[in-house]
Amino acid sequence: MPIIRSVTREYIGKPIRCKGEPLVIEEVELDPPKSWEVRIKILCTSLCHSDVTFWKMNSSAPTARFPRILGHEAVGLVESVGENVEEVKEGDLVVPVFLPNCGECIDCGSTKSNNCTKFGNKPIRDMPRDGTSRFRDMKGEVVHHLLGVSSFSEYTVVDVTHVVKITHDIPLDKACLLSCGVSTGIGAAWKVADVEKGTTVAIFGLGAVGLAVAVAAKQRGASKIIGVDLNHDKFEIGKQFGITDFVNPSSTSNEKSVSEVIKDMTNGGADYCFECIGLASLMTEAFNSSREGWGKTVIIGVEMHGSPLTLNPYDILKGKTITGSLFGGLKPKSDLPLLAQKYLDKELNLDGFISQEVDFKDINKAFDYLLQGKSIRCIIRMDP
Amino acid sequence: MPIIRSVTREYIGKPIRCKGEPLVIEEVELDPPKSWEVRIKILCTSLCHSDVTFWKMNSSAPTARFPRILGHEAVGLVESVGENVEEVKEGDLVVPVFLPNCGECIDCGSTKSNNCTKFGNKPIRDMPRDGTSRFRDMKGEVVHHLLGVSSFSEYTVVDVTHVVKITHDIPLDKACLLSCGVSTGIGAAWKVADVEKGTTVAIFGLGAVGLAVAVAAKQRGASKIIGVDLNHDKFEIGKQFGITDFVNPSSTSNEKSVSEVIKDMTNGGADYCFECIGLASLMTEAFNSSREGWGKTVIIGVEMHGSPLTLNPYDILKGKTITGSLFGGLKPKSDLPLLAQKYLDKELNLDGFISQEVDFKDINKAFDYLLQGKSIRCIIRMDP
Repeated sequence: MPIIRSVTREYIGKPIRCKGEPLVIEEVELDPPKSWEVRIKILCTSLCHSDVTFWKMNSSAPTARFPRILGHEAVGLVESVGENVEEVKEGDLVVPVFLPNCGECIDCGSTKSNNCTKFGNKPIRDMPRDGTSRFRDMKGEVVHHLLGVSSFSEYTVVDVTHVVKITHDIPLDKACLLSCGVSTGIGAAWKVADVEKGTTVAIFGLGAVGLAVAVAAKQRGASKIIGVDLNHDKFEIGKQFGITDFVNPSSTSNEKSVSEVIKDMTNGGADYCFECIGLASLMTEAFNSSREGWGKTVIIGVEMHGSPLTLNPYDILKGKTITGSLFGGLKPKSDLPLLAQKYLDKELNLDGFISQEVDFKDINKAFDYLLQGKSIRCIIRMDP
Repeated sequence: MPIIRSVTREYIGKPIRCKGEPLVIEEVELDPPKSWEVRIKILCTSLCHSDVTFWKMNSSAPTARFPRILGHEAVGLVESVGENVEEVKEGDLVVPVFLPNCGECIDCGSTKSNNCTKFGNKPIRDMPRDGTSRFRDMKGEVVHHLLGVSSFSEYTVVDVTHVVKITHDIPLDKACLLSCGVSTGIGAAWKVADVEKGTTVAIFGLGAVGLAVAVAAKQRGASKIIGVDLNHDKFEIGKQFGITDFVNPSSTSNEKSVSEVIKDMTNGGADYCFECIGLASLMTEAFNSSREGWGKTVIIGVEMHGSPLTLNPYDILKGKTITGSLFGGLKPKSDLPLLAQKYLDKELNLDGFISQEVDFKDINKAFDYLLQGKSIRCIIRMDP
């Protein structure tokens, strides 16, 4: 298999690598897949908030290695496979995922965990098995992978543990949604919280993840789904996803705390609370909004300031639970095909998540839409 | 029904009511039970650490109302009942419990909660329905109830929601154990954590509650049960209850943290961790000792300094859970008779919990034994 030239949009090649500058176009070279690896022709990718977090991250952060290729939500076709790869073959439609799923470790073998211990706990590295990169710039310098995917590129190489084969029946844009954020919200509601019919739900943060929690909670028959967001426009948007009530912290702060408002709305606290932003203070508020006796708070957001989470231990004694997961507790290889099938069977509504579409050359518009709060998911179509 | 004279041992009647002085004997008068109330002749009582906490509590604490009658672990005979009490009658053997169980509220009706919302969330008061006391000293001054039980008295009056009828087949001392601490540990392991066969367990604090967790975990077939305690004698004691391994924080502090030691012992962390002391820092350590992927930490101890609990939110994202309960998540009225039956069927080993027995007149010895770390449970037999 040949080295291929791939066009990527990546923040690269400036003399001083500041954070948060617009992505620039570059040509890179991409090696063939090594053993246990898969080279993918990306068809669609989309911008998840975690990419923005990495994009904004100070260059001194241990995870900020430059130059690198962002992007981890995508769908594509297998272009070629390395030795030992039998799970997928050329032409298969695949969704790359940031969370590995080796299928061999004790966690992959357990129904209780999706935290692949064989591949998941490695420090930041390029390809998971040998730590090297498959990307080079045209001067021959290494370009780094990110989150095991690096989908902001015409082609990418991922380890087979990061690839999920998916049916060709599913529309590409919907398959792309399942690659990270939307699946995370659905999994958090269905698998981690296991939301039951007739219950009350509070969702902190109405981005794609939070709205996916709402869709999944509605599908389970939750009786009240409260959305909490600083952006008032999110209430009208949220209604389409199942949000029944709305709390804007900016308009309650002078009177009651958000948790007090939610307790009033739910006769003592919501049965399930979801934190979808990544702020320790909001995690505390979500926990405080949950019901004594059996209230469960699910942490989905990745804390963005490294702050510790503070809880009142007496509340825990009253029967409250706090838990969390990456990727909504889903095991990529077994659970994503099930979600795809639920979409095809019309048991899972993915309409409405796609707010914009842009061509790859206009990828910076996707950043603009998200940063302006105008985007749920912007699908980025690779040039045909 | 007449007012009866009851002998109680209570810290009472000193000009300045300091905390932590030896209990003194007093005669008190006890009113007949009012509607929904039960008057009980106490047969055995025992000293739970929570009594010591109340005993030590500064007199300015909102829960420190003097004079009062301590004691909340006990077994006794129904002496008389008030109007509307049909659940028990004169001569029934009953276990009084600090946790109410009305059977009517949404929580009592749910399998998920034992947090009776009708009677459980009231501020400190004497009898739960009218807030008044049934005790008076011989000068006619009010003597307060504590925790709905006040068993350090020949007779007491409790609300029917705080009474569990129990079979006469069970030895009195074993019935007394089920009244609080031992049931709390068993419930935490069986009902809250739901410990599974072949799993690893870490127990922080090897008092009666922690040792009851060990007994219950052993009964479930846990493969490793690690006890953590500063008192090295607890390891030999703990072995009789199922403890297989021991960590003494005082001998690890200069090298590794307790959680690091436990992670080494369990290939990455215990499946279940239990905090049975009531220290926020120890709760954090218990959480840190739990396994990523599915580790569950159960808070049983009542935090004794009012300190907040601090957790690393990234650990939660890796699939860890923290939860807790009062009374081990047990519903007194339905679950205590089941535990009694399990004891009678030899499925629950309660041997070994009773370390001493004293007569009621020597009740201060029970405090001495517990404060010196020599006691698991000291049974206090009322004078015949």
